[in-house]
Amino acid sequence: MGYLYNILKRKHILSVVIFVMFLICFGAKTSWASDPTGEHTFALDFRGVDMSESFSWVLLTGFTILFMQVGFIFLGGFLQAKNVLSYMTHCFLATTLGALIYLAAGFAFMFGGFEFLGRHLGGGNSFIGWSGFLLLGEAYDVRTVMLFLFQAVVATFIGSIIAGAVAERMKLSAYVISFFFIYTVIYPLYGHWIWGEGWLFNLPFGVGVRDFAGSGVVHAIGGSIAFVGAYFLGPRIGKYKEDGTPGFIPGHNVGYMILGTVLLAFGWLGYDAGSTLAAGDLRASVVAANTFIAGAMGAVTVLYYSYLKTGAADIGEACNGFLAGLVAISASCAYVAPWAAVSIGFLGGVVYVTSVWFVERKLKVDDPLGAVSVHGANGLWGLLSIGVFADGTYGGVSGLITGNGGQLLSQFIACITAIAWAGGLGCLMYFVLKITIGIRVSRRVELTGLDVNLHGTPCYRFEAAGPAFGPEPE
Amino acid sequence: MGYLYNILKRKHILSVVIFVMFLICFGAKTSWASDPTGEHTFALDFRGVDMSESFSWVLLTGFTILFMQVGFIFLGGFLQAKNVLSYMTHCFLATTLGALIYLAAGFAFMFGGFEFLGRHLGGGNSFIGWSGFLLLGEAYDVRTVMLFLFQAVVATFIGSIIAGAVAERMKLSAYVISFFFIYTVIYPLYGHWIWGEGWLFNLPFGVGVRDFAGSGVVHAIGGSIAFVGAYFLGPRIGKYKEDGTPGFIPGHNVGYMILGTVLLAFGWLGYDAGSTLAAGDLRASVVAANTFIAGAMGAVTVLYYSYLKTGAADIGEACNGFLAGLVAISASCAYVAPWAAVSIGFLGGVVYVTSVWFVERKLKVDDPLGAVSVHGANGLWGLLSIGVFADGTYGGVSGLITGNGGQLLSQFIACITAIAWAGGLGCLMYFVLKITIGIRVSRRVELTGLDVNLHGTPCYRFEAAGPAFGPEPE
Amino acid sequence: MGYLYNILKRKHILSVVIFVMFLICFGAKTSWASDPTGEHTFALDFRGVDMSESFSWVLLTGFTILFMQVGFIFLGGFLQAKNVLSYMTHCFLATTLGALIYLAAGFAFMFGGFEFLGRHLGGGNSFIGWSGFLLLGEAYDVRTVMLFLFQAVVATFIGSIIAGAVAERMKLSAYVISFFFIYTVIYPLYGHWIWGEGWLFNLPFGVGVRDFAGSGVVHAIGGSIAFVGAYFLGPRIGKYKEDGTPGFIPGHNVGYMILGTVLLAFGWLGYDAGSTLAAGDLRASVVAANTFIAGAMGAVTVLYYSYLKTGAADIGEACNGFLAGLVAISASCAYVAPWAAVSIGFLGGVVYVTSVWFVERKLKVDDPLGAVSVHGANGLWGLLSIGVFADGTYGGVSGLITGNGGQLLSQFIACITAIAWAGGLGCLMYFVLKITIGIRVSRRVELTGLDVNLHGTPCYRFEAAGPAFGPEPE
Repeated sequence: MGYLYNILKRKHILSVVIFVMFLICFGAKTSWASDPTGEHTFALDFRGVDMSESFSWVLLTGFTILFMQVGFIFLGGFLQAKNVLSYMTHCFLATTLGALIYLAAGFAFMFGGFEFLGRHLGGGNSFIGWSGFLLLGEAYDVRTVMLFLFQAVVATFIGSIIAGAVAERMKLSAYVISFFFIYTVIYPLYGHWIWGEGWLFNLPFGVGVRDFAGSGVVHAIGGSIAFVGAYFLGPRIGKYKEDGTPGFIPGHNVGYMILGTVLLAFGWLGYDAGSTLAAGDLRASVVAANTFIAGAMGAVTVLYYSYLKTGAADIGEACNGFLAGLVAISASCAYVAPWAAVSIGFLGGVVYVTSVWFVERKLKVDDPLGAVSVHGANGLWGLLSIGVFADGTYGGVSGLITGNGGQLLSQFIACITAIAWAGGLGCLMYFVLKITIGIRVSRRVELTGLDVNLHGTPCYRFEAAGPAFGPEPE
Repeated sequence: MGYLYNILKRKHILSVVIFVMFLICFGAKTSWASDPTGEHTFALDFRGVDMSESFSWVLLTGFTILFMQVGFIFLGGFLQAKNVLSYMTHCFLATTLGALIYLAAGFAFMFGGFEFLGRHLGGGNSFIGWSGFLLLGEAYDVRTVMLFLFQAVVATFIGSIIAGAVAERMKLSAYVISFFFIYTVIYPLYGHWIWGEGWLFNLPFGVGVRDFAGSGVVHAIGGSIAFVGAYFLGPRIGKYKEDGTPGFIPGHNVGYMILGTVLLAFGWLGYDAGSTLAAGDLRASVVAANTFIAGAMGAVTVLYYSYLKTGAADIGEACNGFLAGLVAISASCAYVAPWAAVSIGFLGGVVYVTSVWFVERKLKVDDPLGAVSVHGANGLWGLLSIGVFADGTYGGVSGLITGNGGQLLSQFIACITAIAWAGGLGCLMYFVLKITIGIRVSRRVELTGLDVNLHGTPCYRFEAAGPAFGPEPE
Repeated sequence: MGYLYNILKRKHILSVVIFVMFLICFGAKTSWASDPTGEHTFALDFRGVDMSESFSWVLLTGFTILFMQVGFIFLGGFLQAKNVLSYMTHCFLATTLGALIYLAAGFAFMFGGFEFLGRHLGGGNSFIGWSGFLLLGEAYDVRTVMLFLFQAVVATFIGSIIAGAVAERMKLSAYVISFFFIYTVIYPLYGHWIWGEGWLFNLPFGVGVRDFAGSGVVHAIGGSIAFVGAYFLGPRIGKYKEDGTPGFIPGHNVGYMILGTVLLAFGWLGYDAGSTLAAGDLRASVVAANTFIAGAMGAVTVLYYSYLKTGAADIGEACNGFLAGLVAISASCAYVAPWAAVSIGFLGGVVYVTSVWFVERKLKVDDPLGAVSVHGANGLWGLLSIGVFADGTYGGVSGLITGNGGQLLSQFIACITAIAWAGGLGCLMYFVLKITIGIRVSRRVELTGLDVNLHGTPCYRFEAAGPAFGPEPE
């Protein structure tokens, strides 16, 4: 004992301890075993210095999420040239008006009571939040404002997803008015239940519902509303023949579709990886790789399928396959291994092809951009995929492949809830709009094009493009 | 004394002090009160470790600023198809030649004598800098080079702003030659007075002129030169009827305008937030949110105005409204609260609409892309908005809403200086160019299109686009 | 001795040492001399806290690399409208199928045995690696997965480079099958020899071959395969007159070319700077500035040359000049000063113009997008440029300007190896494909357009664009 005491006293044991801590922190770049979660990799790092890192990470990935709207706008290439401005304006309104409504009220309902980077935002319970309106008062904090920015750009997607299904025939006024309900009630409340750590997040099966980057919150909700909207609108003139078989209304610029898809894939990497919401969560690399892999696999699956079926490699469909894979992996990207991402992307392609066939042929709902199949069907599949493929290396989430069925039950409940909530309220909303101001443009407007009638100009005027149509230069 | 000495000696007080420092630094994640500046949030962090963080932050946001040129190029959709290559080439030259001239001389005049990330760059006084030519010698330092990169991509905007006002009728040679004056004198010197911490920055009213991300330095200067250029060129053939009422020359691809605008909004978030020039300045989140909010508000304002006035939702004008809001908030984004960003964006839309009416109807100056109203008028409004809405939470800047009028006086002086400096030298420059090499293309070139005459090719050749114009595939 | 012992014991020397370390680390923001490498700047920082920083940096720059595919797709504007979907599908396949093959096998061959962020990935020797297949087992680590993501998006470029040279006449099936050889053998093995620290990396001349961001590994290899592919395919119908003089087949959308080029320039900054693969390597700022400067110089050089030669400013060629400068600087961006980047970019433009003339006029190989000259010729020039301009401030790499010739010899060997390896195996591959399934579409398909024949649809259908072609709105 005396000996130990002497060591403690004489050998300046505290100094030694601190010095060893230094060595561990700065010097100990030893190789360690396989680390799929990033936990051990980061443990050698200081946990205290990552605040400014997290700001850079969340802000920069948030910016790329806003940028994805450019991708959504490009998808208008799959529509007829006479209606493209109408669709693009819908996306533009989601980016601007949608975000402003979300600022005024949606954010407060969704994230009131939520803690982010150590800061607790006001009040909220398991069903709804009520703090952060207009970012006034206590919400005027760098962390809360950052959470708002990240979530506001994500929220803009809802409007763009719906725009794809209601394109070429919806009234602008009805589209605008529906935003006030979607961005204050339908989206924020469901979002609160999962991302705001409400009742779905805390379900007693598995660890409760998880949705890393919005397969459920964004895509299943958006896709469900989109389906209801397309159903209430009815098909475009000429989409179905008299005997009920669907025709094909070709897009005016398939290249736009390709540009938009690859652009969205870029943004999706930022969106999924950024959803760690902390730079110190090194799992972000697995998230990004899974996202890329699943998207690529969805694309290849649908491209090959179209080639087998028709003999032509249908690149437009392959683009939707890419997006389907990206939607499907969004929920599970953090919880699965890369080999599982291959499987999820492949099945995402299968789900997309099946859903398009079912929606178009059986339900006879006209969905010009395939938003219901890309976002809705694959959003649900994405939610379920966690319950199947989660390997237990991250967040304690374990799926069927580890022998646990509880998580799948939670995810299934989230699916049912999404359909019931967004589908039910969507029906109510579109029904009220239909019997009041009306939701569909007149037959004359639809035939001559929405652009010239609602926006006062066509999108394209190439008539004076130069010598190809006029005199050659000398 | 003996007691204290004993403590000091026996209790290993230094070890304890260091250990406590460790605890504070690593462990103390306490919750604290609302923190709009980010000062307190960051104070718990190490101030010493943020060098490499700041490099990542400034570089990545700098890249997005370069990317904004893609947005500027897209805005060419608002021009006639026969002149689109001419406009795009102007933007292309701003991105390449402009940056090279800035490398050779502009940067040295603008930032000589400036300190950045702890590094002082050579010599300069309140009126001009003189260090950093070609990044030779002492300027070959990672920090100075990074400052150059960030500022060079910002500088490229000047050329693109002017390109919008002089489009469809300016000689390429005159445009190129003007760069040598703009990028060595007009832009860098005014920039030095504010960003290089020259005499405007140190005005005795308020804290001196502040311009966080260039409402004044970039947009007011660019807009002023653009106005003078458009005035000296005169209107395009067919713009004004014989009785002086303006006609409307429609763009060839309104969709490009939408794509370019949302793309610019993305880059603008990086530009404004990146203007913290340090990852540790957590105010960046408020900066980004304000930027997004003001832009969205400007867009919605102008879209609704156009709908009220004409019954059609003019999406092209709404795009300019988006840009107007973004320009207006650029100076004040760091100094105001989100609610004020809503106001600034709304007023930005109002300023845009008013300015377009005034420039086109009263001054009869033809500005094809509305650059004078978007960048010039809103650049001035942006400068002033600090003096009105700054709430004192950042950088000690307080505007009228806090009861202080001094800041507004400083900002007003910056406005007057911008108009006098850029307008005056712009007149001199265009006058000399006009009486020597000429600044306007011939009537024949303007009627047949600048693209085929100056660039040897039209932009578009769709004539062989496939079966839409030819045989169907079997 | 007794005195020293007393100091050691009584003065708590260890505590003092640690305290001084604290002071140095946190407090010592002294100004220091010019620091082109960033070594000293970073030395004041903690080396131990940069793991999460490096994750943010590598992931975000990796995302921008994927985004460059949007730029490649835009370059299709330089092709005829009837074949644009074919080219875009090639790029799309590189982004999806290419990455999946690389995941399955290419990555393991390229980076087996490589150490990244302190983690050693399985087995490999100087010629080939054999660890990391499908990211299974030990490769399921956050760092290894991140390396895969970064390298997978880089690898997608190979396919897109080749697509530019074989455009408008290649069979889709042959293009797809070639991927299985290119992405498992040609590209990964050469990559292993340099980036995987194989035999070229360790050559005894200078410090061994260096290729910071792929002038050799990506562009010279891609350009060599592209040349062989274009040679085996033969020229497009109508490219050469009966007397062998080349004609000009104009692109359908030159504006796309400009958009794609500036977009690629943005991504290139992320690509080159991100190739530090560590946030703590502050040289990234010099890398980015050099990249921008060389690209801009290449653009201005070719634009001015075209103006001198033809009297018209050929913006399409200038775009290729921009890309040529970017390719040329990719290898040397980290090793040279900004003034050298000006030289390398200028010579890149000269190399491009010379190579186009040589390939088109002398070798009579038809390369629709100039991929051989942009990527191949300038890839080789980029490799050599290190041997000429490296100034010894980074990585110990010194070129001719410092009086050392050894580095140039290493780089020259890398050039010869690239040509022999990629050219030789490329010949074998295309020869086998040609005599088995065939590599060129039929004359009928080529004349009517690949899009409608292989993909079932043309890219563009503007016929119903609205009132420009139909009734005016009332």
